Amino acid sequence: MRTEMSSAPRQMAKNPCSRFKDLLVKAGSFVGLASTAAAAVSFSTSAAPSAAAAAAAASMDSPLRTKVCIIGSGPAGHTAAIYAARAELKPILFEGWMANGIAPGGQLTTTTEVENFPGFPEGIHGIELMDKCRKQSLRFGTQIFTETVNKVDFSSSPFKVFTDSRSVLADSVIVATGAIAKRLNFPGSGSPPEGFWNKGISACAVCDGAAPLFRNKPLAVIGGGDSAMEESTFLTKFASKVYIIHRRDAFRASKIMQARALANPKIEVIWNTVVEEAYGGGDRGTLEGLKIKNVVTNEVSDLKVSGLFFAIGHEPATKFLDGKLQLDSGGYIVTKPDSTHTSVRGVFAAGDVQDKKYRQAITAAGAGCKAALDAEHYLQEIGDQQDKRD
Amino acid sequence: MRTEMSSAPRQMAKNPCSRFKDLLVKAGSFVGLASTAAAAVSFSTSAAPSAAAAAAAASMDSPLRTKVCIIGSGPAGHTAAIYAARAELKPILFEGWMANGIAPGGQLTTTTEVENFPGFPEGIHGIELMDKCRKQSLRFGTQIFTETVNKVDFSSSPFKVFTDSRSVLADSVIVATGAIAKRLNFPGSGSPPEGFWNKGISACAVCDGAAPLFRNKPLAVIGGGDSAMEESTFLTKFASKVYIIHRRDAFRASKIMQARALANPKIEVIWNTVVEEAYGGGDRGTLEGLKIKNVVTNEVSDLKVSGLFFAIGHEPATKFLDGKLQLDSGGYIVTKPDSTHTSVRGVFAAGDVQDKKYRQAITAAGAGCKAALDAEHYLQEIGDQQDKRD
Repeated sequence: MRTEMSSAPRQMAKNPCSRFKDLLVKAGSFVGLASTAAAAVSFSTSAAPSAAAAAAAASMDSPLRTKVCIIGSGPAGHTAAIYAARAELKPILFEGWMANGIAPGGQLTTTTEVENFPGFPEGIHGIELMDKCRKQSLRFGTQIFTETVNKVDFSSSPFKVFTDSRSVLADSVIVATGAIAKRLNFPGSGSPPEGFWNKGISACAVCDGAAPLFRNKPLAVIGGGDSAMEESTFLTKFASKVYIIHRRDAFRASKIMQARALANPKIEVIWNTVVEEAYGGGDRGTLEGLKIKNVVTNEVSDLKVSGLFFAIGHEPATKFLDGKLQLDSGGYIVTKPDSTHTSVRGVFAAGDVQDKKYRQAITAAGAGCKAALDAEHYLQEIGDQQDKRD
Repeated sequence: MRTEMSSAPRQMAKNPCSRFKDLLVKAGSFVGLASTAAAAVSFSTSAAPSAAAAAAAASMDSPLRTKVCIIGSGPAGHTAAIYAARAELKPILFEGWMANGIAPGGQLTTTTEVENFPGFPEGIHGIELMDKCRKQSLRFGTQIFTETVNKVDFSSSPFKVFTDSRSVLADSVIVATGAIAKRLNFPGSGSPPEGFWNKGISACAVCDGAAPLFRNKPLAVIGGGDSAMEESTFLTKFASKVYIIHRRDAFRASKIMQARALANPKIEVIWNTVVEEAYGGGDRGTLEGLKIKNVVTNEVSDLKVSGLFFAIGHEPATKFLDGKLQLDSGGYIVTKPDSTHTSVRGVFAAGDVQDKKYRQAITAAGAGCKAALDAEHYLQEIGDQQDKRD
């Protein structure tokens, strides 16, 4: 759906404390649902720093060894784990510890109801879906560590993967660290009860646009790129009106996309304007409107909307790779067409970290499966590493 | 996983009566689970031929009109429908009436337990999974017809799609008709209680190889191409021994794949040999062995195995397209890299009908989502057809 990557907006939220706290709670309850030795280790590590340091030193001395190391715990990572584990590859999966400010399970843990993952006709809560995927990974023997990978060395095989307290030697690696939808930070933009995130504010029109909350209501989109144009046009299917709020007096979007949006009678552009505050309430505590400010006149006005969609780009989680894989100009991992092969043979990428076009849970899951099958194929190709080691 | 397409074997089963009967029963119960006007129409059609003929004539006279017509009802078709329906495209989906000898829902309806579809940690029966997907399509407004598409006209837009009793004019078409794994037909190869299909006989090593039934047991693979080599090697993870049964004295597989299989100490090739019969029984009614015949000496011998895997290729369901889309040499629809675009602009393909490499339910579902998003994007590009029509 979305075909471009916008540059980071100035106001972008960098883990504001309130959101971080929410997510920590979420992460805690999520990990609490699962029962793995790895999670237990991780939590005891937090509780006893000195013992943890000793354990960390020990695990650094003797790295773990695996055929497949999976980095990431969204639909791509866990589907890769399910396939790799069923193929007896005994994968090690790093689910991250608030990696990129997001709980294990990835972006789905920041949503509420997921209606478009096939197999769940009544919908399923994002956290519940990811907990099911995690259980399925564990069932087939995936070893999960609640640690964040912060360094890799792909210069020779076996590849090396590092967290603060552990290192792994892996014959193949699957990178499935995802991306985060950029969000702006202003009063009312955070999670309930203070803000209206998931209560009218969203970063995915395709996922959330069809919700009853938005039907025949005025909505707003923030952005000025192709994504903003496309999502605004998409939202006119549901909305009574769509305002595009843009901080400049011209769009970055391609001419054709602009023309289509501007020709749509339901779309109105509010130029040179930023959102200062979101407000709402009522019985359901949902968004009711925005305080917006014209940056030329400094005039503040009121805009009644039931929905606000950020369309200001995504940021793939690839910084930890430190240039070890080929990335495109937007920071996404480059994969060979119709495969999950990266620029390094034996390293595969799946999900939103390599897909800036479709970005759905189900497409990420499909890609995760492909990565596991590509890894299995690669391991067959290089011969049975297990035999060589034993 | 599998990278080649073998030619059709001489013995290939062409809807043997017993299997057809099984599938009809399955189809009946499957459709029975769902509650759509479409299914009802289909069944009343069978019950009252003359009224049906009149209705058919009427529907041929006045074709239905839609933005998106989806052909196929496996994971790809229904995921496309879920996305298209949530995007208010009001899709029409033809689920087929025993199309390619398979019930609505596709190949998953011929399996038993599915363990590798993410989100179902305890596994789910293939028919149940597809029933859930179908319910989800219906929930968002997909119109489903239990009819088989047998002709298309993609020469101009709107595209034309025909069944025996109906025609549809569609602004875009998603082809998700799947493929069928080729199977051989001999005594004991069919469904229980007569045969051992899903009771030791399978056509998918990746899907079924990890089942307890096959652990530390001797298994057999029929085939001689790259798939047979790769699947045999894969199965050595679970099996005590893997026999490759091949009807000739040489493999078609690439040299490197042959070399890898032949070097594996668990693999033994039985040349110039065909399977005459599968037998079994016991408490669980599972496969226990094969009667095999050497085609040079005509000697019949006994081979004790707990599993038999057909690795003799797949046949994509593309005959009905009658050359209207570009196909590859194996009959698969050619799609543009990393997309679902076919050779005809506005026609998209997803799932096993265009994927000869990964062929999993979850990869098909991901591709179905992509097809719907590609179609949505295309419809935005060509302008709002609905407005032009109204």
